[in-house]
Amino acid sequence: MERIEHRASFGGYQDVYRHESKTLGCAMNFSVYLPPDAEKDRLPVLYWLSGLTCNEQNFITKAGAQRYAAEHGVILVAPDTSPRGEGVANDPAYDLGQGAGFYLNATEEPWAKHFRMYDYIVKELPELIEAEFPATEARAISGHSMGGHGALTIALKNPGRYKSVSAFSPIVAPSQVPWGEKAFTAYLGEDREAWKAYDAVELVKTASERLPLLVEQGLGDEFLETQLKPHLLQAACDAVGHKLVLNMRSGYDHSYYFIASFIGAHVAWHAKALRGEANPPSVSPDAHLATGVR
Amino acid sequence: MERIEHRASFGGYQDVYRHESKTLGCAMNFSVYLPPDAEKDRLPVLYWLSGLTCNEQNFITKAGAQRYAAEHGVILVAPDTSPRGEGVANDPAYDLGQGAGFYLNATEEPWAKHFRMYDYIVKELPELIEAEFPATEARAISGHSMGGHGALTIALKNPGRYKSVSAFSPIVAPSQVPWGEKAFTAYLGEDREAWKAYDAVELVKTASERLPLLVEQGLGDEFLETQLKPHLLQAACDAVGHKLVLNMRSGYDHSYYFIASFIGAHVAWHAKALRGEANPPSVSPDAHLATGVR
Repeated sequence: MERIEHRASFGGYQDVYRHESKTLGCAMNFSVYLPPDAEKDRLPVLYWLSGLTCNEQNFITKAGAQRYAAEHGVILVAPDTSPRGEGVANDPAYDLGQGAGFYLNATEEPWAKHFRMYDYIVKELPELIEAEFPATEARAISGHSMGGHGALTIALKNPGRYKSVSAFSPIVAPSQVPWGEKAFTAYLGEDREAWKAYDAVELVKTASERLPLLVEQGLGDEFLETQLKPHLLQAACDAVGHKLVLNMRSGYDHSYYFIASFIGAHVAWHAKALRGEANPPSVSPDAHLATGVR
Repeated sequence: MERIEHRASFGGYQDVYRHESKTLGCAMNFSVYLPPDAEKDRLPVLYWLSGLTCNEQNFITKAGAQRYAAEHGVILVAPDTSPRGEGVANDPAYDLGQGAGFYLNATEEPWAKHFRMYDYIVKELPELIEAEFPATEARAISGHSMGGHGALTIALKNPGRYKSVSAFSPIVAPSQVPWGEKAFTAYLGEDREAWKAYDAVELVKTASERLPLLVEQGLGDEFLETQLKPHLLQAACDAVGHKLVLNMRSGYDHSYYFIASFIGAHVAWHAKALRGEANPPSVSPDAHLATGVR
């Protein structure tokens, strides 16, 4: 593991590391924000999963989350979004292959060898973080768009592993939208039964742990109706009585300006759960249409 | 004037506009952040001048200043750093020509026709902002590196025009460092007397208005000793009794991680002056070596 960036930020350090991932069979970058308290204590960790086309840089340069992590004493870890490199399969499209790992373990060729982001995020990365950094085993997870899908599905599939989960503009039902159908067909094959293992709307039906879900969604999001469809998650949660705080924010789009505007509330919410306190509500579920912006 | 970006951010809007600048003789982009209060009131304006290689995007995507502007009811305006386009003179180096306007009016060829960033920032841009947006005539100015030089020199040269001025990692004495010597030779010619009109350390000696200067400087800044030399500004201010709050921050580098960490304090400080209150101190001048980071 090699540190390739090291920058003072809000009294702590925003670092980037590079390591050889056994799970993915390639070199991977991930970012770690160590708040000032990390000098004296082991701290809980919030994992952030980014969206299509992103790498470990987008969240750390654009979200402004370091301020809140410093305030609440939370380590932030943001990995790359897929395996990378010349020996790794790829596709010219932005929504398949490198930069588009979808946080699953691929079973189809040519993807199966390297595209194992699910195992990387659930196992290898936290093992590394907890061994090499002043981190406790208290974990939270969040993400944006494809990464919101990753955060929700990974938390729902791993009871007891995360104290809290949230998402910005997540792909809640990949099996039912173009981004997900394309990626799942390529990575998992034609059999839609196999897709259910990576679909939040499907997983919530049978989740054994009822971790409350906090979802932030902009009403000006250009992908809202075609790719994101948060009402499908609302319906699935309502059907089984799974707690969902869905904040629909008037005017906000799919960009990091949206994430930056509400990441402080999410970090505070995760910090509460990471300290062992129950965390909902963060904003009333009825604030759907009128919050945030003129 | 055409609006080319419009994004909800912290309850307001982060917009980008494009207009034909008469001063510069080319099309120019500038960003405007309108906080939520801009819907009901005219608000004061903080101008941000970016550094070498930057355009109107760097500050708005990386500094996280919108949160503080929303909190304090201040409009943020961040222009591009030079004239641009195919018909505009350029140089292959990153520190001369397009992206490196140095906030002066060039007198030498091939620069004199378009490179009039001083007039653009002092006159044309604020006239446009005050005519087209819900802005008062209360102005503050800040910037980073080359833009810190721009903010300091423009405020010092225009008594009464700005309520406050600050800078991050500014080039305080361009006449004495390589970046400035190269740019001033090209834009202003060999006569070093002419350079004094755009050199903060020279201008502070004769400033008729004693606007307090707030300067933030990282001690881990890779350009500190070669290009920035804040001690020259300290000495010049001490010699004439000009108030300077110089915060030397242990560990911080020249990047936007540094700006993001302290922009909140600067916006608060400007907001105070823009409301008509006297503004120093913002952090003791003695906090030089020990603040901010382990």
